[in-house]
Amino acid sequence: MSMTRRNFLTRVGQAGGYSATFATMQALGVMPMKAQAVSPITANPGVGKGVSVVVAGGGIAGLTTAYELRKLGYNVTLLEARNRPGGRNWSARNGTVVEFLDGTKQTCTWEDGNYQNLGPGRLPSVHTTILGYCRELGVPLEVEINTSRSTILQNDNANGGKPVVQRKAVNDTRGWVSELLAKSIKGGALDQDLTKEDKERMGSFLRIYGGLGLDSKYKGSDRAGIKQYPGAANQTLEIEAPMDMHTLLDENFWSGILYEEAWDWQATMMQPVGGMDRIPYAFARELDKTKTIIYNAPITSFKRTGPNKGVEVTYMQKGVEKTIKADYMVNAMPLTIIKKMKQDLSPAYMESINGATFASSYKLAWESRRFWEKDYNIYGGLSFRSPGPTTVIWYPSAKLMAEKGILVTGYEDELIFGWEKLSMEEKFATAKKQLEKIHPGHSQELTKPLICLWRQIPYNEASWIRGYGGGDKGYQTLLQPDGPIFFAGDHTTHVVGWQEGAASSGRRAAQMVSDMVKSATA
Amino acid sequence: MSMTRRNFLTRVGQAGGYSATFATMQALGVMPMKAQAVSPITANPGVGKGVSVVVAGGGIAGLTTAYELRKLGYNVTLLEARNRPGGRNWSARNGTVVEFLDGTKQTCTWEDGNYQNLGPGRLPSVHTTILGYCRELGVPLEVEINTSRSTILQNDNANGGKPVVQRKAVNDTRGWVSELLAKSIKGGALDQDLTKEDKERMGSFLRIYGGLGLDSKYKGSDRAGIKQYPGAANQTLEIEAPMDMHTLLDENFWSGILYEEAWDWQATMMQPVGGMDRIPYAFARELDKTKTIIYNAPITSFKRTGPNKGVEVTYMQKGVEKTIKADYMVNAMPLTIIKKMKQDLSPAYMESINGATFASSYKLAWESRRFWEKDYNIYGGLSFRSPGPTTVIWYPSAKLMAEKGILVTGYEDELIFGWEKLSMEEKFATAKKQLEKIHPGHSQELTKPLICLWRQIPYNEASWIRGYGGGDKGYQTLLQPDGPIFFAGDHTTHVVGWQEGAASSGRRAAQMVSDMVKSATA
Repeated sequence: MSMTRRNFLTRVGQAGGYSATFATMQALGVMPMKAQAVSPITANPGVGKGVSVVVAGGGIAGLTTAYELRKLGYNVTLLEARNRPGGRNWSARNGTVVEFLDGTKQTCTWEDGNYQNLGPGRLPSVHTTILGYCRELGVPLEVEINTSRSTILQNDNANGGKPVVQRKAVNDTRGWVSELLAKSIKGGALDQDLTKEDKERMGSFLRIYGGLGLDSKYKGSDRAGIKQYPGAANQTLEIEAPMDMHTLLDENFWSGILYEEAWDWQATMMQPVGGMDRIPYAFARELDKTKTIIYNAPITSFKRTGPNKGVEVTYMQKGVEKTIKADYMVNAMPLTIIKKMKQDLSPAYMESINGATFASSYKLAWESRRFWEKDYNIYGGLSFRSPGPTTVIWYPSAKLMAEKGILVTGYEDELIFGWEKLSMEEKFATAKKQLEKIHPGHSQELTKPLICLWRQIPYNEASWIRGYGGGDKGYQTLLQPDGPIFFAGDHTTHVVGWQEGAASSGRRAAQMVSDMVKSATA
Repeated sequence: MSMTRRNFLTRVGQAGGYSATFATMQALGVMPMKAQAVSPITANPGVGKGVSVVVAGGGIAGLTTAYELRKLGYNVTLLEARNRPGGRNWSARNGTVVEFLDGTKQTCTWEDGNYQNLGPGRLPSVHTTILGYCRELGVPLEVEINTSRSTILQNDNANGGKPVVQRKAVNDTRGWVSELLAKSIKGGALDQDLTKEDKERMGSFLRIYGGLGLDSKYKGSDRAGIKQYPGAANQTLEIEAPMDMHTLLDENFWSGILYEEAWDWQATMMQPVGGMDRIPYAFARELDKTKTIIYNAPITSFKRTGPNKGVEVTYMQKGVEKTIKADYMVNAMPLTIIKKMKQDLSPAYMESINGATFASSYKLAWESRRFWEKDYNIYGGLSFRSPGPTTVIWYPSAKLMAEKGILVTGYEDELIFGWEKLSMEEKFATAKKQLEKIHPGHSQELTKPLICLWRQIPYNEASWIRGYGGGDKGYQTLLQPDGPIFFAGDHTTHVVGWQEGAASSGRRAAQMVSDMVKSATA
């Protein structure tokens, strides 16, 4: 099974403690590192002239594929089942209807200007492919606050269930670690490892790094917690006593903030101004210039009409089945959907697809007065709590200081903590109860809940892939075309569950199609 | 001498290494901690009816004073020497003229929408007084990115002068610290200090915290540096080798990033959308409703006309000297300016003011293509270099992904590195030369330099206070009124050089005036 970053994060959320995290990181570490850089597209500008391609699915992968193919002169048709582009990149706002497979229907009635990204919500600055498209398409970006020292950690099974502000956990831990290392060095424990000069360097470094006293002891620091802030006249700074180390090291306690240094979680992260769906709409605006996208056109079947060229795709349009023929097809639909479709993919592909497993991430969001800003000085970022359900409170980065905002009070896999067994009303009640542990008295301010269970969303039926039938062999299979049919989507990358993966796969698909066209005409 | 946070930071910038930082932190630590919370204003709403107050100076302290006094019904006149509110809160944009005492004149010609805050540029989320005014006055805020892992450290005297990305310095250091502590614990060095359970807890914690291997050794981590990012198909993640510990611990190297956990530097930090001067203009908009502010009205003298009530203030207006009489005066001008004025302050006050010393901070900003975003993935934050001059490169948080932006390539005290001895052209050339060490080849993209030397700005003549004549006694003197004359300004607080200090002092002045009125009428 191909271990991906997103698997890693999901599993950690599932396990809760950092022993489990560690096991997962090791598993990640032993992955084969077969380097094979995806180059910029190298095809000649006119390569697509007279060549037709059907792109199936208008998520980020499909949009990127169509956009790049259009640039190369292909005759492209993108079939999208819904009335909007973006797939999982979906922002709910006033009027948005979230309908589940079981018929449950929610209509969003938040104030104008308030929105929630139901799918991806963050653009790491190292995700240069998708950021490059934002730049190219002129999508205005703003900061997405992923780390804020005012946010909170809480665990029912640690510190007596009492919440702790992140700045305290982070900086008290650093203080204790520094004190202990300073003591070890002073006691000679590392004389074999460090030169006299390095011991001295490390000694002075640790006093600053850990906020230690002249005696190299940790007694709290202004970074960790302040009883009284400095102010006018004689209002000077007073420091809080530190948390005890034993509690800080409880593996149930710390895990939430171990991610902030992860390469795809490090500051700076960004988001489009006004909602993540500004990205798919920007692609769609470009593609609409050539009427490339057909909306409300769910595909019902596809088949090959030749070994290396020729496909026939049928889809519904206003109750009528239509057929489109093309030279090639790029399949950017989720595997959950392809699986149930009438098609003639080769057995190896079907083995990979039929055996695939999926994550079932959900997000629960509410409209509320911004009590977290006014009463807690929390501006964006995430609070973490444990055990689940509802292990995350995610505060909005948009419209700081506005009267109301959208608060996420649950974001994890619905199958982990028995969440899927709860009714809608039970889910909302549970989320409120859990929020009380971090923000007592404030659950009554939460209004207009909106929940997106990706497993229940038509044309998705999952949040992202976990593994492939046949494991890595199954993954490798999907990387190659099945005759004239190519695959795109974050499931054909090592950046599962991120738009970066989807966008990279789209570029790769455009390259692969062009390579095949070139070799066919050579 | 009253040691303030801002002194601390300035001194650290001056010294460069963390031995010096540490000495300063200790000095800060031994400050007397005399707690005396500044309460919200408690005066009765009508207390100011029929009472007149002249507020001298329209910086944040003066604006806050006038705003609060107006709320209490006082008859307030605010005299401001310039044609704009804000004092040091000054944002340069197209058309702004920066004129020095020596007659040097620069006119800003940046593209519309580009600006630079020449004074304060950050609002920490813990600065609740000034943030409260932003909320009350409806000033839209956005994130100011203070920490970005993609920014750079560079020191001519460490690591062969080669720049290092911050994520590498931060996370390799954490890796080495964790490895050494894990080894000490395993070797039994801390058996006297830790229980068996805590040793185990610490052991598993450090593997995750430091990104260590199963063998508790540090071999680099994806947080610190990635040779190849994961991507489509078979593009998997490859990790860089770590930097050696000896270099990382060079005290010349690390110092720049020791601040990010400081309580007033921690994420989340904010800025008004469009420029910091949105704050003074929001105050002015309110005060203009009652025509409270008189602009272009530099004060020439002031005196008391009674022991506890009565002041006479003269000022210039269109070349004519005018006099205004009032019951009280709140002096919110910089001490540098009061010092040179004709007035009758009591000897203790003059001793404090005449003996005061000041910092001479400057900022140098350029308009440029955003090469740091496109070519370095740097979105906001600061790069640090050493030795000075120009120890900071500060990237804009506003308008991410725009074509051009404003880059600060120098922000420190001009008297520290001999900067004041350079001509304007030499300053620009030096800043470009230093930038080349971090962003080689890009200094040629810097255009339209604008420099603000606060020591050279009329009506300021300094950036902020460093100390008072008579030390703490001098500070205590200024906290009390000299008969009917009160003092406000960040120099009457422990939050020197921050708007939080100025705003707190204004609230305090309004309270003090009201207390005096109340006791006079009791």
